[in-house]
Amino acid sequence: MASLSEIAKLLGGALSGEDLFITGISTPDEQLPGTICVLANEKATDKLSGAAAAYIAPSGFKEYNEKPLIRVADTRLSFAKLLEFFFPEKVKPAYISHKASISDSAVLGDNVTVDDFAVIGDGTVIGAGSHIYSGAVIGGNVKIGERCHIYPNVTVYDNVKIGGGARLHAGVVIGGDGFGYVPGAVHTKIPHCGDVVIGDDVEIGANSAVDRATVNSTIIGSGTKIDNLVQIGHNVHIGKGCFIVAQCAIGGSAVIGDYVIIGGQVGIRDHVRVGSYSNIAAQSGLGDDIPERSDYGGSPAVPLKEWGKQIAGLKRLSDLRKRLTALEKTK
Amino acid sequence: MASLSEIAKLLGGALSGEDLFITGISTPDEQLPGTICVLANEKATDKLSGAAAAYIAPSGFKEYNEKPLIRVADTRLSFAKLLEFFFPEKVKPAYISHKASISDSAVLGDNVTVDDFAVIGDGTVIGAGSHIYSGAVIGGNVKIGERCHIYPNVTVYDNVKIGGGARLHAGVVIGGDGFGYVPGAVHTKIPHCGDVVIGDDVEIGANSAVDRATVNSTIIGSGTKIDNLVQIGHNVHIGKGCFIVAQCAIGGSAVIGDYVIIGGQVGIRDHVRVGSYSNIAAQSGLGDDIPERSDYGGSPAVPLKEWGKQIAGLKRLSDLRKRLTALEKTK
Amino acid sequence: MASLSEIAKLLGGALSGEDLFITGISTPDEQLPGTICVLANEKATDKLSGAAAAYIAPSGFKEYNEKPLIRVADTRLSFAKLLEFFFPEKVKPAYISHKASISDSAVLGDNVTVDDFAVIGDGTVIGAGSHIYSGAVIGGNVKIGERCHIYPNVTVYDNVKIGGGARLHAGVVIGGDGFGYVPGAVHTKIPHCGDVVIGDDVEIGANSAVDRATVNSTIIGSGTKIDNLVQIGHNVHIGKGCFIVAQCAIGGSAVIGDYVIIGGQVGIRDHVRVGSYSNIAAQSGLGDDIPERSDYGGSPAVPLKEWGKQIAGLKRLSDLRKRLTALEKTK
Repeated sequence: MASLSEIAKLLGGALSGEDLFITGISTPDEQLPGTICVLANEKATDKLSGAAAAYIAPSGFKEYNEKPLIRVADTRLSFAKLLEFFFPEKVKPAYISHKASISDSAVLGDNVTVDDFAVIGDGTVIGAGSHIYSGAVIGGNVKIGERCHIYPNVTVYDNVKIGGGARLHAGVVIGGDGFGYVPGAVHTKIPHCGDVVIGDDVEIGANSAVDRATVNSTIIGSGTKIDNLVQIGHNVHIGKGCFIVAQCAIGGSAVIGDYVIIGGQVGIRDHVRVGSYSNIAAQSGLGDDIPERSDYGGSPAVPLKEWGKQIAGLKRLSDLRKRLTALEKTK
Repeated sequence: MASLSEIAKLLGGALSGEDLFITGISTPDEQLPGTICVLANEKATDKLSGAAAAYIAPSGFKEYNEKPLIRVADTRLSFAKLLEFFFPEKVKPAYISHKASISDSAVLGDNVTVDDFAVIGDGTVIGAGSHIYSGAVIGGNVKIGERCHIYPNVTVYDNVKIGGGARLHAGVVIGGDGFGYVPGAVHTKIPHCGDVVIGDDVEIGANSAVDRATVNSTIIGSGTKIDNLVQIGHNVHIGKGCFIVAQCAIGGSAVIGDYVIIGGQVGIRDHVRVGSYSNIAAQSGLGDDIPERSDYGGSPAVPLKEWGKQIAGLKRLSDLRKRLTALEKTK
Repeated sequence: MASLSEIAKLLGGALSGEDLFITGISTPDEQLPGTICVLANEKATDKLSGAAAAYIAPSGFKEYNEKPLIRVADTRLSFAKLLEFFFPEKVKPAYISHKASISDSAVLGDNVTVDDFAVIGDGTVIGAGSHIYSGAVIGGNVKIGERCHIYPNVTVYDNVKIGGGARLHAGVVIGGDGFGYVPGAVHTKIPHCGDVVIGDDVEIGANSAVDRATVNSTIIGSGTKIDNLVQIGHNVHIGKGCFIVAQCAIGGSAVIGDYVIIGGQVGIRDHVRVGSYSNIAAQSGLGDDIPERSDYGGSPAVPLKEWGKQIAGLKRLSDLRKRLTALEKTK
């Protein structure tokens, strides 16, 4: 429960209309009475007829006087701030469950929480304020930074390093062996003796997997966000601030720059290099290196404009054939 | 072991031929002596030469007198009934393992089974007859209906609601945070303060993930069946009776109607609306809304007929080029 | 630390240049001083300017005298052997954690290790030297061979059989119910009463899932290697020595021959038969049977040469249209 003037102040926005009290947040498609609804952009005027008591909209939003409206510079950031305001994170006092299994040689920082049936291996170091949830299994000689959330049933193999502020969602696996064999009548396994190094503030979605390197490291840069069910191969290097959407697969030894955005279900071949600030459309298959600031789409992937032409061309193929047949008949 | 007349009665079918005793069921491709084999349709006449002692076939099946045959209205339903008959589910007496960790404030219905190292959080309610398997971690304030199977190593985050008769296979994750950030030099996480609401008789395959909503709910309707390794984004609404095949990814806030069938490895963009009774072919990429009873295929997806034409056109592209070149030469 | 002559002997290779002592292995892209670097093929001459102290190269490698070089018959095998040499597997003494839960009727071979919070069900047999890691849940009546690694948080349902030397990485699920229903207003579940049979020396990557059969068995042949996040449907039969790359999905009752290579994110329709020694390119969608030694690509998949033509044709579509338009104008 908060007044609209209080919310406007929180968001650095400008309130027009009555200073109501509102009870919560709702989304444009599911507006509830008494709540404030965040309109993402200036085109969302059709959502103004919903049940919400007030709206938040971008500063350039159209003239509107029916209900109270707060104009803000960044609607998405405002949405995030509002969520934090209405749903403050419950901080439970730290505790170590006596049902967890923690090696005598593990080192836990201040205010670390370890839930039931979590396992922490020999020589592993857990940073202050981190939370290891139930059923998470952390191997030996692992380093986990401060304020991390290692959710239930996560597995971290030996020797992995994870920075501060990381969130590994349930079922994530870090440091399993990569897919490497010497093929033959009997395939010989290539041992994976390297590790995985994850930077600060990395979030990895449920049931994703990051393989360990053969030698040296598989690297995920700080601030990179990875969605659910993503596969990161051995010796992959991912830069800072990337977004990798659900069910992508990045082949072994691929090198992804900084601030790259990879859509859902994309496949990237092993050893491919993707320049920083590039965008790869969902379901693409990337088999070759691409430079910085490239936009690619399709399978096999081509520059986005080219891909648009291919799609348009495909749609007009039967038209093309008809025209050709007509031409043939005129001869 | 059962007589064919007994089986014909169970299935409401008509037996022709000798009333043998048979020892089990086999599939058309792996027929074993002494068993009965279910032929799915009228075309499967080439399977009659197998080792099975008797066959089940649809009522319109061809004249056949070599071995006993039971004609039934629905062969698939008969297959299901036979499996239940020959392999009755073993019901073990309910028990609560003293090696599980169950909050004092959790409420367990009658005949609930909780296996070793399962965790049940504060204020969580488990309906009568449900079974929480080893290593499953159920958060706080969760509601699970009656007769559910929550298989090993499943994770259910806080505040999730699951109806009666649900089966969550091993490794399923319900209620992890969605993939939502305000992009910037440092990406700001959008808190996920909503929940997940799953209807009755929903089955979710191994290692699938369903994200929680930002606000309000991610919803899966009653009777919907989801295969393995499927990704359901935050705030998605799925209707009743849908089939979602393995490795699909449904983007945030997408709305899927009732009785939609989504083939394997399909990707659906966030915010897309799929009308009820629609079918989407495997590996499609759906980026736009489609109305009720639509059949779509391809990436990007187009109406199925259109897709068929695109594929046919692609196959004849080099032919098209040759014809064009020939025409150019005649000038 | 080892001398180059010692390494040459280990690999059966020929050393040219000084017999230095080297401290470890590095990869071509991340060469470290004091290490030996393995060059995969004869074209990798641009890597000779790196920081490594010595190189390993194929026997036909160019004349090179700047640094010591060991010529070997098989560089990949040499890489594997070197990794084993420099990183010998640490064999811990076997032990059974008193925090594990092992049925009284389970039978454990010699030198089996069972970690904390692992569960082993009734009547299950674990072969000598196998290691069941923390949080792994092994059902009842399971047979696991000798020298297996069942990594953390793996789930093996009842009645599964696994050969010797298997490695199931973290989060793998073996034996969940397949995706089978009799569709209707209410979908009827087809019980899955069969099992899963996995041969010897099979490796399965993190969070992959193998469904149990309706009747009979889902089968994975000896020596087959499966990457992360792969889906294997019910009643699938996979032969020996296959490679199945990350995020593939193989539909129910498909039959895959021996030594088939399936690229990443491939989908194979249920009931499809793939002949031995076939290769399927990444992201393909295979809907029809293919004979032995087939190379296929695309979605829907066609012979690889055909696929190459389709891709080339797509790229020249707009050119085709321009030529046609020009021709139309000349009339």
